[in-house]
Amino acid sequence: MRENTLKAIWARGDAVINGWLAIPSAFSAEVMAHQGFDSLTVDMQHGVVDYQAAVTMLQAISTTPTIPLARVPWNDPGFSMKVLDAGVFGLICPMINTRADAEALVRACKYPPLGYRSFGPVRASIYAGPDYGDRANADVLVIPMIETKQAVENIDDILSVPGIDAVYVGPADLSLSLGCAPGLDKTDPPVVDAIRKILAACKRHRIIAGLHNNTVAYAQKMINDGFQFVTIASDSRFLAAKASEEVAALRKSGVRTGRLPAY
Amino acid sequence: MRENTLKAIWARGDAVINGWLAIPSAFSAEVMAHQGFDSLTVDMQHGVVDYQAAVTMLQAISTTPTIPLARVPWNDPGFSMKVLDAGVFGLICPMINTRADAEALVRACKYPPLGYRSFGPVRASIYAGPDYGDRANADVLVIPMIETKQAVENIDDILSVPGIDAVYVGPADLSLSLGCAPGLDKTDPPVVDAIRKILAACKRHRIIAGLHNNTVAYAQKMINDGFQFVTIASDSRFLAAKASEEVAALRKSGVRTGRLPAY
Amino acid sequence: MRENTLKAIWARGDAVINGWLAIPSAFSAEVMAHQGFDSLTVDMQHGVVDYQAAVTMLQAISTTPTIPLARVPWNDPGFSMKVLDAGVFGLICPMINTRADAEALVRACKYPPLGYRSFGPVRASIYAGPDYGDRANADVLVIPMIETKQAVENIDDILSVPGIDAVYVGPADLSLSLGCAPGLDKTDPPVVDAIRKILAACKRHRIIAGLHNNTVAYAQKMINDGFQFVTIASDSRFLAAKASEEVAALRKSGVRTGRLPAY
Amino acid sequence: MRENTLKAIWARGDAVINGWLAIPSAFSAEVMAHQGFDSLTVDMQHGVVDYQAAVTMLQAISTTPTIPLARVPWNDPGFSMKVLDAGVFGLICPMINTRADAEALVRACKYPPLGYRSFGPVRASIYAGPDYGDRANADVLVIPMIETKQAVENIDDILSVPGIDAVYVGPADLSLSLGCAPGLDKTDPPVVDAIRKILAACKRHRIIAGLHNNTVAYAQKMINDGFQFVTIASDSRFLAAKASEEVAALRKSGVRTGRLPAY
Amino acid sequence: MRENTLKAIWARGDAVINGWLAIPSAFSAEVMAHQGFDSLTVDMQHGVVDYQAAVTMLQAISTTPTIPLARVPWNDPGFSMKVLDAGVFGLICPMINTRADAEALVRACKYPPLGYRSFGPVRASIYAGPDYGDRANADVLVIPMIETKQAVENIDDILSVPGIDAVYVGPADLSLSLGCAPGLDKTDPPVVDAIRKILAACKRHRIIAGLHNNTVAYAQKMINDGFQFVTIASDSRFLAAKASEEVAALRKSGVRTGRLPAY
Amino acid sequence: MRENTLKAIWARGDAVINGWLAIPSAFSAEVMAHQGFDSLTVDMQHGVVDYQAAVTMLQAISTTPTIPLARVPWNDPGFSMKVLDAGVFGLICPMINTRADAEALVRACKYPPLGYRSFGPVRASIYAGPDYGDRANADVLVIPMIETKQAVENIDDILSVPGIDAVYVGPADLSLSLGCAPGLDKTDPPVVDAIRKILAACKRHRIIAGLHNNTVAYAQKMINDGFQFVTIASDSRFLAAKASEEVAALRKSGVRTGRLPAY
Repeated sequence: MRENTLKAIWARGDAVINGWLAIPSAFSAEVMAHQGFDSLTVDMQHGVVDYQAAVTMLQAISTTPTIPLARVPWNDPGFSMKVLDAGVFGLICPMINTRADAEALVRACKYPPLGYRSFGPVRASIYAGPDYGDRANADVLVIPMIETKQAVENIDDILSVPGIDAVYVGPADLSLSLGCAPGLDKTDPPVVDAIRKILAACKRHRIIAGLHNNTVAYAQKMINDGFQFVTIASDSRFLAAKASEEVAALRKSGVRTGRLPAY
Repeated sequence: MRENTLKAIWARGDAVINGWLAIPSAFSAEVMAHQGFDSLTVDMQHGVVDYQAAVTMLQAISTTPTIPLARVPWNDPGFSMKVLDAGVFGLICPMINTRADAEALVRACKYPPLGYRSFGPVRASIYAGPDYGDRANADVLVIPMIETKQAVENIDDILSVPGIDAVYVGPADLSLSLGCAPGLDKTDPPVVDAIRKILAACKRHRIIAGLHNNTVAYAQKMINDGFQFVTIASDSRFLAAKASEEVAALRKSGVRTGRLPAY
Repeated sequence: MRENTLKAIWARGDAVINGWLAIPSAFSAEVMAHQGFDSLTVDMQHGVVDYQAAVTMLQAISTTPTIPLARVPWNDPGFSMKVLDAGVFGLICPMINTRADAEALVRACKYPPLGYRSFGPVRASIYAGPDYGDRANADVLVIPMIETKQAVENIDDILSVPGIDAVYVGPADLSLSLGCAPGLDKTDPPVVDAIRKILAACKRHRIIAGLHNNTVAYAQKMINDGFQFVTIASDSRFLAAKASEEVAALRKSGVRTGRLPAY
Repeated sequence: MRENTLKAIWARGDAVINGWLAIPSAFSAEVMAHQGFDSLTVDMQHGVVDYQAAVTMLQAISTTPTIPLARVPWNDPGFSMKVLDAGVFGLICPMINTRADAEALVRACKYPPLGYRSFGPVRASIYAGPDYGDRANADVLVIPMIETKQAVENIDDILSVPGIDAVYVGPADLSLSLGCAPGLDKTDPPVVDAIRKILAACKRHRIIAGLHNNTVAYAQKMINDGFQFVTIASDSRFLAAKASEEVAALRKSGVRTGRLPAY
Repeated sequence: MRENTLKAIWARGDAVINGWLAIPSAFSAEVMAHQGFDSLTVDMQHGVVDYQAAVTMLQAISTTPTIPLARVPWNDPGFSMKVLDAGVFGLICPMINTRADAEALVRACKYPPLGYRSFGPVRASIYAGPDYGDRANADVLVIPMIETKQAVENIDDILSVPGIDAVYVGPADLSLSLGCAPGLDKTDPPVVDAIRKILAACKRHRIIAGLHNNTVAYAQKMINDGFQFVTIASDSRFLAAKASEEVAALRKSGVRTGRLPAY
Repeated sequence: MRENTLKAIWARGDAVINGWLAIPSAFSAEVMAHQGFDSLTVDMQHGVVDYQAAVTMLQAISTTPTIPLARVPWNDPGFSMKVLDAGVFGLICPMINTRADAEALVRACKYPPLGYRSFGPVRASIYAGPDYGDRANADVLVIPMIETKQAVENIDDILSVPGIDAVYVGPADLSLSLGCAPGLDKTDPPVVDAIRKILAACKRHRIIAGLHNNTVAYAQKMINDGFQFVTIASDSRFLAAKASEEVAALRKSGVRTGRLPAY
């Protein structure tokens, strides 16, 4: 089986730099796979990406050593198993709020006797190799999202479920759940406090802590605090940011440019 | 018919800021359509975009007042007419090197008696309005690319063909044709000289001069020189640039990050 | 945020004319968006339309002021949230039979504290504007379908759930549930009676009543009775009806036409 | 090989009723294939349909005995051969204006020794049967469009090219070419006169005459005049017509309906 | 309604030879539909096939008399109903382990009063005919998978649920569940024993027994044992097997061939 | 730049085993890329594959060291350049019959000064590396098809055009052109004789000889004769062959199986 290199990065104590894919295109995924990320996550929850497009994106990622991950829309066994069969080396699942949620997630992602994942890794065994079936339970990462007040309260219950490799903090949902405005790179004390609690719990349970960030500066701070799985923005945010910066720079440069009527 | 607002911008003496679409996705096209460009060109030549994807991208652009353009792969009447029917307000065609090339292009893009474009604007008349058929000959822009030594030599012949609204300089092909390395934002004297000649000829023939650029600085200079249709980079370049900048910034920040083996 | 104009129509006491999309094509959706409907519903339940096609159809609708709605296949939070993120201004959900069903639906469609919708309106905030997150709870319509005997019995329980804007009656399922033949424009007394009860309950709870119809005549009657959200047939029914009418008219006209063997 | 039933209809002296597909969807194609047409033409010229979508539409037509035809965008051998390999039983080609055009078309559509079509009927031999290669030259229809003043002048030259089965008149282009407004169901004397000349020439050369029509009434008249291949409108026109009729009927019925602001 | 010919085959006491589709392509599906299978199952669980691709594959199958079936990813009513509406004549559902699972499956697949399937057979009534609604409850097959230790223990409970036509044994999951290595054509005594028990229960309940096999030899044995619904391998396995056999034969033939570096 | 390993195989005097892709699916392409071929050719001429599908198939091939090639539908510069930009390492072009045809092909495939290929290797430089532009003229293979009587007569003229790396014999077209039945693995003396002449000319001009074959036995013989580029069948032929063999074996095994009515 192809090595899941994220595990080695984590074992060295280093942080994984993860990219995020919301554009449903295998070409933009291939472009992203050449920019130096350790892993790329196909976002099937908020990204504009459904299963069939996701498979072509995973193929595009597989043209490089970048590790392919996916976020599923919800904790649904049929959906999670289908994405695992497509050959991801880790599955991020939103809104894991209780020990029961976490157990359901893990059991859907693991073959018996650890769970009830159905056997048929049609693309996964092509991507990963013929011994995929033997090694998937050990090598494919299960990554619940911790993103509600309730999840923070239940953090020890959740993290003590065997089979969880990492957690992923969704700051926008966590903020909303705590009565704060949604967003990334949050500095509101309740959110900062919750993130700190999650990180501490991860350390206690020897589980990798991950986080979605908007900027390098915040991601850097989070790594220094102990997070080992950090995402910066996403493909569509990168695209919008760069394009608008360039257009604005040219418009502000003093040259005479047209401008369409606002809408 | 919806107004082709590029004409008004040009009539004021201003420059159009054009964006470039190489990613075959209606979602990334919609993102680009919200970043402030006056027009967006679906690149069906070097972009990874064929007709069926292009139509969905044109629809995405049509959700905004941004003017939709396309570059066709070659000067082929069947292809050009099909793209015009899809509702673009301007057609950029590569490698127009002679008066005959230019005449063939114009005739494929104009209904009789100006040309032999076949009538059937199935989507164009939805996008542009029921009077599209009456106004297309006047309002839809024909934009040959001037990108070879031969074209520069024939520039007056080409520009005197009735029906040409603008020209578009492809610096990479122009450079290769002149024995220079391909690229954008060129400073090699033969290329600079050729670009100057093209611009001067455009002024003589009262035709808009356009150019593909890589940076704001170069585009700004070109506008100051008299170009009124400038593109900066493309969606896939923006994406690659921003993503690699952010990853590099994080890796250089001093935090401990993993790195996959090179390949 | 773009205004959800359906609310203004309803506030004036008028009825919304809704179109229905079962063909998985952004082009046919764009054609429909130019025929004068106030809103168009992408039918992801019985229509031949999955998420990825639906997004391109929503983009096609967004080229006009027609309000985009979707019907989801089932009351499933992951699915509903994903469709909301794609930028619909209202979500129709089948088979809401109990107060618990209705509460689950509303909670999946509303951000905290009204519900647990996850935050990430990736296309919705492009379509609707950057303040989408602040206004979605108020402006995006939640429309349960009332289409079973059980739902009619529980109508007051269902309609008293806060956050429901309208209901949509599915006459075919309602008929089957009441022991009648499935169909639209029903005149069977049990179905008529159930529809009357639903309408009366809507009036009591100040909730908009909606209905799927097959003909203008029935829709007209329903508007006169007080329904303010009416659909007529669907794109595929329009297509089949018009095509078969024209073929039949020509065959019956007395000219000699061929006819393929029946199949 | 499956029988090309159009030949039998024509042999009886009857007219073929043909449907027209501009919507790039296998589902709408399947709907159309059940409405009683003798043949359906996938319009790859003005329709919003490229090759890959066309194949799925041909498969949808193949679920019924309706005969599949296609119109190609231009007289281009690579394109025509590719569409023939996809399994059409007739190919309509626009803008055949001279004997040389007609010969080029026929030669691209026929295997040696009649032409130079390349052998590889990958889907055609599945659809039509294993003897497709032996019978294609005889059974697959070659149908040039006669739609310019020049073509009418050259009509005898064109029709005397061996291998032409029928011609198809494009009234919109013919009108433009004759200095009249483009459209269908034309009554302008120059257009009517040209159509009459084409029909007379077809009778002289024992070639089937075909025509694109907008209404049953006009198609009926044309059949009575001797046309044996008539199309009425298209899928997207049927859809737009029926939808707008129904919306208008409801709005005019006197009930109170909303109306979005015009745009 | 088109006849569901599987029922007649079974009534004669014969076995149905079923093919399996994991490649998301209507063309490969059409190729498979011409190879002599009685039925073809679109595998939406482990196959690389989502709903929108599945519909085009069902259309491809519908070009022949081969009976179209599908396996859904999970026992989810919204998903099952959507696939039934697409026109399958039987639905295979994984992981039915209890009577409650079986009842939920049957109820989602049957219209009232037998279940709560929602009415809207948009493509099914085109494929099967206008009386589809009346006959679907009787003619569309419901086929739970028996593939866990728990399911074998509950086999009589499951098979006594009215509305089940056949069961389908998944040997890989059954093996895992019994502590054996996953695979097909199993000879491990616990698996063989479980399969024997399932078969015996099917005979008791007069329900058709089905099984996934890897080879003709095993399928042959299973038919002789009493299975009446057998699958051999799948499209992607056939493709991989034949291609690798041919490449290996040529490399071993003694001719000098290159070989890329292993990876 | 990634090495074009075919050149090294040929330099050693060995034969390249090439696979052929006619199914428009990135998944089946990925399956084929794992079966041991040295190269895979996406067939855009007779295969059911257009540009947009081809790109996803090239990505699938790029997940392995298998070298990606494509056959274009015709000798058309716009099309050939677009496929080269997509990242193939060799281009097979049908029906090269004269020195002028060969020169046109080479010039479209080579950057100046060797040709007039337009510069914009948007995916090629991602796949092959940033130095693609410098090395493409030397490393990307140009492979005309020799498949007509005329081409055999002109073979020395064709092969003396600088820039041709290999030729590919299409036995079906060659047979038709020589008055024989189309097919592969031909033994008709005129075809065998023509193939021998082509091979001898290749040796004279130090150009690689390639051939399409149906069976291992014939391919083996051709390699022994001196061919260094051999294809066996195609993905869709492999699929059809294996599936029909297995079904036939089971039906003939003596077990009782059903059989659908022939069609």
